[in-house]
Amino acid sequence: MKRREFFNKGLLASMGLGAMGTQLGYAKPSVHSKAKTAKNIIFLVSDGMSTGTLNMADLLLRQKEGKRSRWMGYYQSSFAKRGLMDTASSNSMVTDSAAAGSSWGGGMRVPNGSLNVGPNGELPVPILQKFKSAGKSVGCVTSVPITHATPASFCVNEKSRSAMPEIAVKYLDLEFDVMMGGGKALFDSEYREDKRDLLSDFRKAGFSLAQNREEMRNLNGQSPVLGLFSEGGMPYAIDRENDPELKNSTPSLAEMSAKAIELLSQNPNGFAMQIEGGKVDWAAHANDAPALLYDQLDFDAAVGIALDFASRDGETLVIMTTDHGNANPGLFSSNKFSKLYTATRSNEWILKQLSGDNTPAQVADLIEAYQGLQLKTEEAEAIVKKYQGPDGDGMYGSGEVPNHLLASIQANHTGIGWSGTGHSSDYVELAMYGPGSENLPAFIENYKLHNLMLEAAQVPSLAYAI
Amino acid sequence: MKRREFFNKGLLASMGLGAMGTQLGYAKPSVHSKAKTAKNIIFLVSDGMSTGTLNMADLLLRQKEGKRSRWMGYYQSSFAKRGLMDTASSNSMVTDSAAAGSSWGGGMRVPNGSLNVGPNGELPVPILQKFKSAGKSVGCVTSVPITHATPASFCVNEKSRSAMPEIAVKYLDLEFDVMMGGGKALFDSEYREDKRDLLSDFRKAGFSLAQNREEMRNLNGQSPVLGLFSEGGMPYAIDRENDPELKNSTPSLAEMSAKAIELLSQNPNGFAMQIEGGKVDWAAHANDAPALLYDQLDFDAAVGIALDFASRDGETLVIMTTDHGNANPGLFSSNKFSKLYTATRSNEWILKQLSGDNTPAQVADLIEAYQGLQLKTEEAEAIVKKYQGPDGDGMYGSGEVPNHLLASIQANHTGIGWSGTGHSSDYVELAMYGPGSENLPAFIENYKLHNLMLEAAQVPSLAYAI
Repeated sequence: MKRREFFNKGLLASMGLGAMGTQLGYAKPSVHSKAKTAKNIIFLVSDGMSTGTLNMADLLLRQKEGKRSRWMGYYQSSFAKRGLMDTASSNSMVTDSAAAGSSWGGGMRVPNGSLNVGPNGELPVPILQKFKSAGKSVGCVTSVPITHATPASFCVNEKSRSAMPEIAVKYLDLEFDVMMGGGKALFDSEYREDKRDLLSDFRKAGFSLAQNREEMRNLNGQSPVLGLFSEGGMPYAIDRENDPELKNSTPSLAEMSAKAIELLSQNPNGFAMQIEGGKVDWAAHANDAPALLYDQLDFDAAVGIALDFASRDGETLVIMTTDHGNANPGLFSSNKFSKLYTATRSNEWILKQLSGDNTPAQVADLIEAYQGLQLKTEEAEAIVKKYQGPDGDGMYGSGEVPNHLLASIQANHTGIGWSGTGHSSDYVELAMYGPGSENLPAFIENYKLHNLMLEAAQVPSLAYAI
Repeated sequence: MKRREFFNKGLLASMGLGAMGTQLGYAKPSVHSKAKTAKNIIFLVSDGMSTGTLNMADLLLRQKEGKRSRWMGYYQSSFAKRGLMDTASSNSMVTDSAAAGSSWGGGMRVPNGSLNVGPNGELPVPILQKFKSAGKSVGCVTSVPITHATPASFCVNEKSRSAMPEIAVKYLDLEFDVMMGGGKALFDSEYREDKRDLLSDFRKAGFSLAQNREEMRNLNGQSPVLGLFSEGGMPYAIDRENDPELKNSTPSLAEMSAKAIELLSQNPNGFAMQIEGGKVDWAAHANDAPALLYDQLDFDAAVGIALDFASRDGETLVIMTTDHGNANPGLFSSNKFSKLYTATRSNEWILKQLSGDNTPAQVADLIEAYQGLQLKTEEAEAIVKKYQGPDGDGMYGSGEVPNHLLASIQANHTGIGWSGTGHSSDYVELAMYGPGSENLPAFIENYKLHNLMLEAAQVPSLAYAI
């Protein structure tokens, strides 16, 4: 449709031949681009999204609600721009999120674990600092701590991603316009090793603080915003949506994204932002299928927010991708998949309900009630046994609950299998919409996205061609 | 560039406004298409190729030989046309190869296991019969039996893919121009239940028969060709390439493809063919990493043959894709991957060397010698124990050797993990080159490829729009 409109304009303009010639000079093989500068950039990253994650989330929505995911809907509605992206870091074919994010954020490959600190100590200026210097509003939204690797990779230089308390301090100095997600503990004197009351410092510096959904809704953009909606990572979407209290108190990724766009777009010079579905990666690490698929759909709703804004706005480049594969899940049995349509809790939530002295029958009942799966006696027994641990002391912390055992048992009931519990070297899906998307080649190295974004916005880029 | 040319023509034509309007109606966003008819079609299918398979084969070649796979090289060299393809059958989100091939071959979704027999008994005319009727030469090349599901799906209607002996008879009647691969047993009176000497029947009907690499090389295209180079599936590429005798006697997929194109392209009306890397799927089912990656590269060499021909020819549509994911493998540890660079035998070959009374030390020695992996004592013991089976009778057939146990042990040494041992529901990679590729949307249902091919060649298509 957009293309047809363009052609019609071209056709009319051809009455004056010179004018048409100018327009044609910018023509590129894209149907939606009007070939102008990207005033705004929205970069969406579903962290650790393997091919099967994108696929199963779309199948889930089609089967459950009769509609496609927004991401796949974009593909189906038009000749969308897609590229296959490699994901390597400077020292590995298998990247971590810090190095992957830095490739985009700094325009160069860095070692795993590093945030925009190159293999020879290079300190490339992070992309949101560049956009801020160019007069745009900037920000990040995520479902994990706002100081976590992926948002931080667009903001700071830091040798180690684990320096999250220091990154929180750097955010104070950067004074970016909208930073929202989890990770309140990183700003809290009670949890910080240096006992600094960073929340108070942000307030003094003029930030508006939001700590629940209602406070977020009331933000008006008069001052920079820090939104912190949980101590660590935010709850999984499936757990939030099925718990009325949590749903009322905690914004979804789409709600945070909509608010952030509302605030950032008040700047007449435009904005640049990152939106991260960070807990997709966490769910993949844990092989937690209900968490994974509903968090991918939560991310997909944010994709919808971005595409709808960009479609109305006409001057926004939207990028949707992932930083690397994780666990390469797949659906191997069609008829078992329906259990996922009605599940109401993540594996993480299920396992948190258990103590060291549950009976196998109690475990089986819990899983049937919240996930609709009917475990065999020996399967429930295996979970109880593993939960208590080899010494039967039941002292495992929450990070050591038998989530991978539960996942392997679930595979027999849901048809979903997993190749591992970490990141994979897969080349990954990447799509763009809007001005600048015409420059996306069929295959792109991750670090070349840095310049692609800067060039789309006509902000000075690095001295290499994409 | 091409687009620019088109616009310039449009600009000139706009002196007469009506003519321009007509041209604009056909405008599509492709850079390489000359927007003419596809005289020839080469359809390449790496059977059961998950994202990780394509990715790891490319990484392997880059690390081992410093060059990219031809498939990825095509992406990197230009604005290649890519589409994401769904893979469902009429009765499952997880297809088998018969239904997947039939979606392309017959233009409709059929139940798993069926070859161009629809859910209500529909019998769509298989695509190579259509191209043959249109005066083109047609054929299939594969590394599995030529009567197997994927080649058969372009040739025949058959309620069950397992009717391979009957499919062999149908090939006699069809008299297609070039059919080459494995599966000699299906044509051999000794193995056929009906004791029919089908090889002799093919000879009497005027076919040229080739049963080894030398005979294949001497084919001249004066008569239809049946090439049968093994009793069942052909050897894995890694086993063939590292066994001088086998390499001398058995053609690679690329060699078969080059010969087939040489013969088929003698027809002034053009040709249509399918090239299948069928053992990629078999290797994925067995979780056999060395077999999988080197067979994917064997397939990739055939992609190169096709692209090179199409590039010279200018009238050939090349399609490269897969019918479904399989086992969703991934590389999870960068530094272990190098073991694959020097491996010289498949897991299948390794396990075939074993008998019921090998010692763990012998098993470990064999694997170190041919795959460079240093198994722990308990790992070698586990293989020996499993090989002998629960009854210790050592009577397992070749299909029951402990290939999945070996794969799970290998994962610790190679960094490659597997999500399952069967097909997955993943949406899959699809790329095109040449005339007709401009009609590929960003997302395509598998069955729509049928009409896309027919329309590219201007052969009558089915009564629905793609």
